[in-house]
Amino acid sequence: MSATPEIQTTNKTLKPIVGVSGRTIVYDKDGKPCRACNTLLDFQMATGKKPKSDQINQTSLVNKAIEKDEYRQDPPDVEVLGKSSWTFMHSLCAKYPENPSPKDKNQISTFFDMLGRMYPCDWCAEDFSQYLKDNKVDTSSNDGLNMWLCGAHNAVNVKLGKKEFDCQLWKKRWRDGWE
Amino acid sequence: MSATPEIQTTNKTLKPIVGVSGRTIVYDKDGKPCRACNTLLDFQMATGKKPKSDQINQTSLVNKAIEKDEYRQDPPDVEVLGKSSWTFMHSLCAKYPENPSPKDKNQISTFFDMLGRMYPCDWCAEDFSQYLKDNKVDTSSNDGLNMWLCGAHNAVNVKLGKKEFDCQLWKKRWRDGWE
Repeated sequence: MSATPEIQTTNKTLKPIVGVSGRTIVYDKDGKPCRACNTLLDFQMATGKKPKSDQINQTSLVNKAIEKDEYRQDPPDVEVLGKSSWTFMHSLCAKYPENPSPKDKNQISTFFDMLGRMYPCDWCAEDFSQYLKDNKVDTSSNDGLNMWLCGAHNAVNVKLGKKEFDCQLWKKRWRDGWE
Repeated sequence: MSATPEIQTTNKTLKPIVGVSGRTIVYDKDGKPCRACNTLLDFQMATGKKPKSDQINQTSLVNKAIEKDEYRQDPPDVEVLGKSSWTFMHSLCAKYPENPSPKDKNQISTFFDMLGRMYPCDWCAEDFSQYLKDNKVDTSSNDGLNMWLCGAHNAVNVKLGKKEFDCQLWKKRWRDGWE
């Protein structure tokens, strides 16, 4: 059995169609591999960075260990919940339309309003609700929304004594990657 | 410098007021430590499980390493995004009211509708949107919503060849813990 995965390609484009994970690789409409739709290893493979076999084996082992214990885990603490929530929110907003419809604007505003009322950590929710009152969500465009969210995240970073993120770099961190 | 943290307590209740993380420990209105408002180590301390000093030191080192590189990370892949999103959604729904108001019901419905339209992974969003059409969100109560979400999560587990979670146990996994 080979440790190097077989790279199946379509005849016309020479793009890989199945990744090292065994999943079909998903491409965006512009033909580029979709980062949020593939595993990291598959995405790397599809963008021409073929991962090393030991990297694949390590990932596979780690994944199996995680899956085995996943269902018996305790509920997340404030740090795991916070990290998960920011990852979710930044990723969601990164895909917000350039020219949002009234429905898009309404739904994202409702979402943040709901978070200020229902976020599982009560004191976080109260602080966030106050932030919303002082800093209205910018639903006007993709960049506007993400700059607003970056500001909201930095307000929490400051509160927790963490360093602030340079909001001009949000696309690298949450949408396009650093390379 | 001692490796064991100082446990400050209030005079009247003997509850710790500052955790091993240096943060103030947050208690719910019923007087119990709030799981989603504290770090795991602080929560353990407040519930009488004093963590070992080597556990604290390890956590501190890991946290520092994570923080150092956090801002230069690439956007999440589909697995990290999926795990973060489920953690966020289950935690949010776990705190949904027992007797939700019309506003609560409307906001949570809008949230899931938005996910079916805007979730960053397009094929995940399409599948979720179809699931919503076939399985209307149960907004009637805390248990109803969480049983519905557990079913939605299991549909994805089946699709990905993962084992299903026993939905009767959702409170242990996402709200109360296993002990």
